[in-house]
Amino acid sequence: MENFNFYAPTEFVFGKDRENEVGSYIKKYGGSKVLIHYGGGSAVKSGLIEKVKKSLDSAGIAFCELGGVKPNPRDTLVYKGIELCRSEGVDFILAVGGGSVIDSTKAIAAGVPYDGDFWDFYGKKAQVEAALPLAVIVTIAAAGSEGSRSSVITKEDGMLKRGIGYEILRPKFSIMDPALTQTLPAYQTACGCTDIMAHVFERYFTNTTEVEITDRLCEAVLLTIVKEAPRVMADPDNYDARANIMWAGMVAHNNICGVGRQQDWNSHALEHELSGLYDVAHGAGLAVIMPAWMEYVYKHNVMRFCQMAVRVFGCQMNFENPGATALEGIRRFRSFLHSIGMPINFAELGAREEDIPVLVEKLGIGEGKLGGFMELDRNDVTGIYRLAAHSEV
Amino acid sequence: MENFNFYAPTEFVFGKDRENEVGSYIKKYGGSKVLIHYGGGSAVKSGLIEKVKKSLDSAGIAFCELGGVKPNPRDTLVYKGIELCRSEGVDFILAVGGGSVIDSTKAIAAGVPYDGDFWDFYGKKAQVEAALPLAVIVTIAAAGSEGSRSSVITKEDGMLKRGIGYEILRPKFSIMDPALTQTLPAYQTACGCTDIMAHVFERYFTNTTEVEITDRLCEAVLLTIVKEAPRVMADPDNYDARANIMWAGMVAHNNICGVGRQQDWNSHALEHELSGLYDVAHGAGLAVIMPAWMEYVYKHNVMRFCQMAVRVFGCQMNFENPGATALEGIRRFRSFLHSIGMPINFAELGAREEDIPVLVEKLGIGEGKLGGFMELDRNDVTGIYRLAAHSEV
Repeated sequence: MENFNFYAPTEFVFGKDRENEVGSYIKKYGGSKVLIHYGGGSAVKSGLIEKVKKSLDSAGIAFCELGGVKPNPRDTLVYKGIELCRSEGVDFILAVGGGSVIDSTKAIAAGVPYDGDFWDFYGKKAQVEAALPLAVIVTIAAAGSEGSRSSVITKEDGMLKRGIGYEILRPKFSIMDPALTQTLPAYQTACGCTDIMAHVFERYFTNTTEVEITDRLCEAVLLTIVKEAPRVMADPDNYDARANIMWAGMVAHNNICGVGRQQDWNSHALEHELSGLYDVAHGAGLAVIMPAWMEYVYKHNVMRFCQMAVRVFGCQMNFENPGATALEGIRRFRSFLHSIGMPINFAELGAREEDIPVLVEKLGIGEGKLGGFMELDRNDVTGIYRLAAHSEV
Repeated sequence: MENFNFYAPTEFVFGKDRENEVGSYIKKYGGSKVLIHYGGGSAVKSGLIEKVKKSLDSAGIAFCELGGVKPNPRDTLVYKGIELCRSEGVDFILAVGGGSVIDSTKAIAAGVPYDGDFWDFYGKKAQVEAALPLAVIVTIAAAGSEGSRSSVITKEDGMLKRGIGYEILRPKFSIMDPALTQTLPAYQTACGCTDIMAHVFERYFTNTTEVEITDRLCEAVLLTIVKEAPRVMADPDNYDARANIMWAGMVAHNNICGVGRQQDWNSHALEHELSGLYDVAHGAGLAVIMPAWMEYVYKHNVMRFCQMAVRVFGCQMNFENPGATALEGIRRFRSFLHSIGMPINFAELGAREEDIPVLVEKLGIGEGKLGGFMELDRNDVTGIYRLAAHSEV
């Protein structure tokens, strides 16, 4: 196990109808003029934004609002948000939505007190040193952004997708009401479950040895999704299954599953180019990429893939041929994703094999390598995209 | 799953030699005059206190010190600590030690700004509303007090053991260096592992249904201890096994394993009377009480005990006779505790069966009941102590 710091000071306010308490929590954390930031209208249509305004009114908190966050949130709206916060004297930002809204909120929060262009942070030209305080009402179990330090934004010019992570960007509080996720389309629910599993796998596949406690915590999240996701697909109103998935989604990404170990994140890197180019859902892109990545790299540490196969997917260990067990685990993972309605190859995702050179180019690794569980050069990345293009269950 | 709040804002500073950074962390969290609070001398003999002082000196932080915390920490020393903090103008308390030292530190922190007798908090006559900030350097993996809101103190007059829990008592930061635990006597190491498992079981046995994610997280901790404790008993210098146990100990008790569900805590209540009366180690008392409690209550929910037996102790499910599986799980738990050197009955612990009426009396339940997984009246409690008195592997 490696040395690490773990600091996750977000207050989680979890359960039915907790969104009605948002006003008092913003007060507790010192907000007096709030920007309510949200997405494409479902938060309005469902009456959630109305509830939020009512709670803010009751608490005597002023607010303005900015909707219109799209999946793969854009820099263009972030600029608008920064300007609005400045002109309105906003001192607290409330994200009402999923990972895209939260990530857009974090970008605005970092951008407001910064003199330069906020994209400097994402382009690694500057460090975030100050940010407005922010909080979240989550409407989809997926990104884990409600408990994380990270934010991913897409630059509209060239559809360039880049991420950052800073402690100062962790939400002050996050309200998580599983009932809010009951009205989600099945496809989005499944994308969320895929994203949660991917957040764990990016940490699970490591070259750091002797990390039993974090391995077991990773498996706890994975086993929960394997059990609960099919229940939610069959019965979208199942509050308890939704609740287990929602809390698992937070645990998957606040890094309690990832401390003390080297992490991978290459599947996310490869996926970001896919969802950047085709504007597909991040979870759907991961469903196509992640099993392909596994098939490509499993020989790097066969026993770790056997551990996944046996502990998470209930495979019998083949002691004479561990590679067969590893591959069976990967097969069951892909088959699980397929069973909850996820695409598993380029055609089902809406991606095109002939674009692979473009995807590789946009990754920008040149003659270098992506670090991680197994280092990947251009040829490796091309190989993974090719496997992903043609996957079958 | 029930509604809940989860808030664990302690910064964990984990790994080899991290204690040398203590000065800069106290500075970060605003301390300028520190009370260093520790136990019976091993922290001095090992040179740890010296290291701490050096780090505080480097950071330009003034300090005074108070040693002498005993296992089952006493009110008498807490009074001394409160007085010392007031007379010296202390604004930050640093615990260097295990659960007892940390609990004593929390009591002092709560007592300093309080006008009345600090025991009012433990006697449930007053609420903690303010406290000095505190931090921890942990020297044993056990209590989980480094990440928890709770503190247990023993009133010397009558050896009355009582606990409290407040968010304000969570440490600002906790330094966890697994290497510091390598010199612990085997018995104390084993007591710590037992305490960690008990913290999980008190949460695991619940009447709340549909709590898969927290069940799996509980099992993650338990499986880690089942794997790592025997390695540490065989090889006390095994840093990695120590590290896994130490982090598992924090996860076991910061309540990430217990949110959204009713908890039990009756084994702790029964044990507190044992260690109060005989001044035995808390973990050793739990090793005697907890399996006996399980045997007494398992019929209340046989399938939950089967889940423990199968998932944690690797039992084959007996589908024709689930009760047999439940009992086999309990047998394996007790046998595991015995294998790491724990006492498993009154004689091995140094307790006396004829004192059972005294133990029951001190619990103070009168004609009432202890709430929890299964409600327990005087007869039930007597029955559990009797089972504990005569347990065999």
